[in-house]
Amino acid sequence: MKLIRFERDEKITFGILDGEKVQALRGPPTQPLHLEETLTLGEIRLLAPIVPSKIVAVGLNYRAHAKELNLKPSDEPLLFLKPPSALNGPGSPILLPEMSQRVDYEGELAIVVGQRAKNLSEAEAPKAILGYSCFNDITARDLQFKDVQFTRAKAFDTFACLGPWIETELDPSDLKIETKVNGQMRQSSRTSDMVFSVPRVVSFISQVMTLEPGDVLITGTPAGVGPLENGDTVEVTIEGIGTLSNPVIHVE
Amino acid sequence: MKLIRFERDEKITFGILDGEKVQALRGPPTQPLHLEETLTLGEIRLLAPIVPSKIVAVGLNYRAHAKELNLKPSDEPLLFLKPPSALNGPGSPILLPEMSQRVDYEGELAIVVGQRAKNLSEAEAPKAILGYSCFNDITARDLQFKDVQFTRAKAFDTFACLGPWIETELDPSDLKIETKVNGQMRQSSRTSDMVFSVPRVVSFISQVMTLEPGDVLITGTPAGVGPLENGDTVEVTIEGIGTLSNPVIHVE
Repeated sequence: MKLIRFERDEKITFGILDGEKVQALRGPPTQPLHLEETLTLGEIRLLAPIVPSKIVAVGLNYRAHAKELNLKPSDEPLLFLKPPSALNGPGSPILLPEMSQRVDYEGELAIVVGQRAKNLSEAEAPKAILGYSCFNDITARDLQFKDVQFTRAKAFDTFACLGPWIETELDPSDLKIETKVNGQMRQSSRTSDMVFSVPRVVSFISQVMTLEPGDVLITGTPAGVGPLENGDTVEVTIEGIGTLSNPVIHVE
Repeated sequence: MKLIRFERDEKITFGILDGEKVQALRGPPTQPLHLEETLTLGEIRLLAPIVPSKIVAVGLNYRAHAKELNLKPSDEPLLFLKPPSALNGPGSPILLPEMSQRVDYEGELAIVVGQRAKNLSEAEAPKAILGYSCFNDITARDLQFKDVQFTRAKAFDTFACLGPWIETELDPSDLKIETKVNGQMRQSSRTSDMVFSVPRVVSFISQVMTLEPGDVLITGTPAGVGPLENGDTVEVTIEGIGTLSNPVIHVE
């Protein structure tokens, strides 16, 4: 099932996408599903498929990416947060901020939490997962190195691209993940190359903080990160989910 | 004016505290105030006075604290985030997690945002501020040094103590700030010792991310940080606001 969130006539609604058919829902997909009107994809504008209370990220979760940054993968997942104010939807522009001279794409697999959870074992992790989506963890690389703390570099408005939908039926353990800029391949890897698996990531984060319905956990980016420029289009494609595409705009 | 949030008969309400008198409000204090019933302080249980969409912190904002951690204050505010799931209210226990062997208090002045804001100048900053509160930025010091990233160390449930209320009439520029453990003074400084002032902090953060009503910005801790143990009581007192007190409990 593909869960979406969309805007139509200035009203924001959750729904289920089936081919070109859109089945509207009364409430968010983290609650029991009540079906409402049926629409078509052409009548709506897709938004980020969920609004998380927090976005928790695992840094350096593919060995080849840690190596390209001259950083060491750690023996436990390395956590950082992105603020909800950075949330960006499919097709919506990534805004290059004045404060940075070097803004990079980072394609990632996103886990969407379905229910409140705390202290999950790896075996219990799947029951807390609603589904999976594509994520682009936009990063001001110059500020990341200046601050050492990743927060500012990853916190600008529009820097948390999520979508185009949440795929609920998916085995995340060995999926192709690719990032293209203007149609050219920049990142190409498989989720089986993660240092810490999806169940390990969910379990570990839940040992630290209570997971809330709709929270988004992102699982690290493969090697091949690089800069975005004004006018670029960046796409993150994950096997079994689809493609998240965003234009890049420099705002004076 | 002292703005509170409280629980009574399992119902959560915002209000205004005047001595022992509690004036209930229909909605949050970030919206126009509609007065409802009048209660007394004895009839209610105080909660964290607001539920933020994000908690944005400035690290190393008092020179003497940066020095005690052997870290350098930076030329710009150094940002990190605490998740909303860590929020804790006055009188509510700080839970020591299994994952850490060393959990510290950090008394701080909290700024509560009153309205959506972006790209504020320092002169414009005050108009976005609803008021001020006390904050205890609980930190697993061992994990902070292990991870280098501050996130995990500061993200455990109950690690974001806020309260007891929001004081709306206050000049934050030169207030005494003190932290006591079991009645013994551990931190004693003045907000005038901040490297980056309240208007600079608000302006800087708003250059990076859109501030939302109710967001909490914390302004760094003075020198004198130290550990908390099972059974301790920790108090943060700020001149013109009041005292935030929390017991400390180790949960097996």
